[in-house]
Amino acid sequence: MTSRERFLAACRRQPLDVPPAWVMRQAGRYLPEYRAVREQHDFLSMCRTASAAAEVTLQPIRRFGMDAAVIFADILLPCAAMGQDLRFAEGEGPRLAPCVRSAADVERLVDFDARTATGFLGDAIRSVRKELGKERAIIGFCGAPWTTASYMIEGGSSKNFEHSKRLMLAEPEVFASLCSRLVDNLIPYLAMQVEAGADVLQVFDSWGGALDAATYRSAILPHVQRLVAGAKELGVPVILYVNGCAQLLEVMADSGADVLGIDWRVDAADAIARVGSRVALQGNLDPCTLFAPPAVISREVTRVLDEFREQRGYIFNLGSGILPGVPVESMDTLFRVLRGRHERAAAGQARSPRCG
Amino acid sequence: MTSRERFLAACRRQPLDVPPAWVMRQAGRYLPEYRAVREQHDFLSMCRTASAAAEVTLQPIRRFGMDAAVIFADILLPCAAMGQDLRFAEGEGPRLAPCVRSAADVERLVDFDARTATGFLGDAIRSVRKELGKERAIIGFCGAPWTTASYMIEGGSSKNFEHSKRLMLAEPEVFASLCSRLVDNLIPYLAMQVEAGADVLQVFDSWGGALDAATYRSAILPHVQRLVAGAKELGVPVILYVNGCAQLLEVMADSGADVLGIDWRVDAADAIARVGSRVALQGNLDPCTLFAPPAVISREVTRVLDEFREQRGYIFNLGSGILPGVPVESMDTLFRVLRGRHERAAAGQARSPRCG
Repeated sequence: MTSRERFLAACRRQPLDVPPAWVMRQAGRYLPEYRAVREQHDFLSMCRTASAAAEVTLQPIRRFGMDAAVIFADILLPCAAMGQDLRFAEGEGPRLAPCVRSAADVERLVDFDARTATGFLGDAIRSVRKELGKERAIIGFCGAPWTTASYMIEGGSSKNFEHSKRLMLAEPEVFASLCSRLVDNLIPYLAMQVEAGADVLQVFDSWGGALDAATYRSAILPHVQRLVAGAKELGVPVILYVNGCAQLLEVMADSGADVLGIDWRVDAADAIARVGSRVALQGNLDPCTLFAPPAVISREVTRVLDEFREQRGYIFNLGSGILPGVPVESMDTLFRVLRGRHERAAAGQARSPRCG
Repeated sequence: MTSRERFLAACRRQPLDVPPAWVMRQAGRYLPEYRAVREQHDFLSMCRTASAAAEVTLQPIRRFGMDAAVIFADILLPCAAMGQDLRFAEGEGPRLAPCVRSAADVERLVDFDARTATGFLGDAIRSVRKELGKERAIIGFCGAPWTTASYMIEGGSSKNFEHSKRLMLAEPEVFASLCSRLVDNLIPYLAMQVEAGADVLQVFDSWGGALDAATYRSAILPHVQRLVAGAKELGVPVILYVNGCAQLLEVMADSGADVLGIDWRVDAADAIARVGSRVALQGNLDPCTLFAPPAVISREVTRVLDEFREQRGYIFNLGSGILPGVPVESMDTLFRVLRGRHERAAAGQARSPRCG
């Protein structure tokens, strides 16, 4: 069974001896070889240069052998393609201008042709496929409607999402029209990634945790459902990841996604009990664990694997993106534990005969 | 029934026609009269000048007539009293130095005498009591062990709590000794506030939401329990507020606190079902609601009041502190709705004959 087959089987909730594994933001700053490429490019030009994006996408696979490569890109690329000016100043978060805060602002956004405006991403996926063959899965992705809209409305990262929530409460039809425009554009953007070779799609709702379940269900979920349905029509499984999702699991399970990516705050048994019979699960080691000594990392990775052992359809991951300062040795430890599972399974000595 | 009696009755889960109400950070920058006092003092000297602290504590009561005054102070004052250098640079968060990251660092902390080191706070409480008489409740407070420890370890605010979690995982006994030292000092600090006149104590775990329930239960809860028990021995009710507590309600209810303060992400019915029979609840309007037009604010305040109508022991509040940019008129709207409840209750026409 190849890594790719293992990954797709987990998404489809088929029984497995050992779960597939990847790490959110695995193509990232914790890797010295990433920092070397990054020195040659600013962040956005790295996203937009297919050879650079492909190179950093492949780096962690070469080192650790994850079951899936997640294409190097940024969830805000579509905002730029829709006409906002997007900048990443060194050491700061993204800046988007002008902010989208009125019907006229939404009106002014442009619908983009994914193949021309973001063709570099398709090229990067094709390069990655060339190196990986069919051995490993490739994950394409986009931002979720709420997270993407909030960046466009706030003009960058936000602590309290004042403008986004104000718009949602005061002018719900304007907010909804922004989300609709986003989904209109994100579906072809995902389609372009699948045409180029993506096997799986992940929708990142990084800021979904700022919302209560009732608000998410009424104002956000319909847009997520349309996005997920559009993605699934492409014939690939869809992972919906929400950071801070303890209050949102049931709403997320109603999205139509095949897999829910959950953060470290969610208790595995609780997630399994609440939605584990409806969807596959992905997660959820606290990314800060990777700052601990190897023995603690081993213990915690083992704990997470054991907690999800009975879940039908499970993908190992962190509960959010790997942090820039993580020692590379911590990732060695993590994947040593995972390889140990494979070896024991191959030897017929796995502690549990199945995962899911 | 005075406001103070209403507030204490809610904490003790006695039946009430209308819930008491206050607003976290009600003595704050959204008020022009606060900003006028603030112009005369930097933030820390405002905390440490009893007359200024008392004045800004009273300002929102004069304007809106909340049932309780929360004394103006900062949860980091005890860190300074324990020997860390504490600064608030304009427009930045707090800075604490040196960071506490080793057994020797914990050792070096000093135990402070609350009456001498933080006597200004007692003086401020006595001034507030003088003006309020016994009409309204006075809320004293401190930071919770995790939140306070994380500031001391990180040296300020943090996005990911890398150093705090590393210490907790890698050197759990050092982390525990820091929490113990904190609780040793926070109990007399709270006692000083009660001696000065505080009727209720709130423990703020502003960053508790960064933790999963199992970690909170094993590494944090014992310290919270000791703090809460120490506070309750003073004869006053204790409110435990955790921001981002959707995954923590049961753990919080095991703290021994009389009231759980919950953030806006938590569904009221869910909170009532999970812990409402064991503790009173406080919350949980999304603070961003106050950026919406009056009609939306009225609707949302009414919704929250209705959702908690069946809860025995309920205090109306926001789900976190009021934001600096909120228009004063929004608070007028909020308290107009609350006054309407009182008037209807007095006229025997309240939609529900009881709250709790």
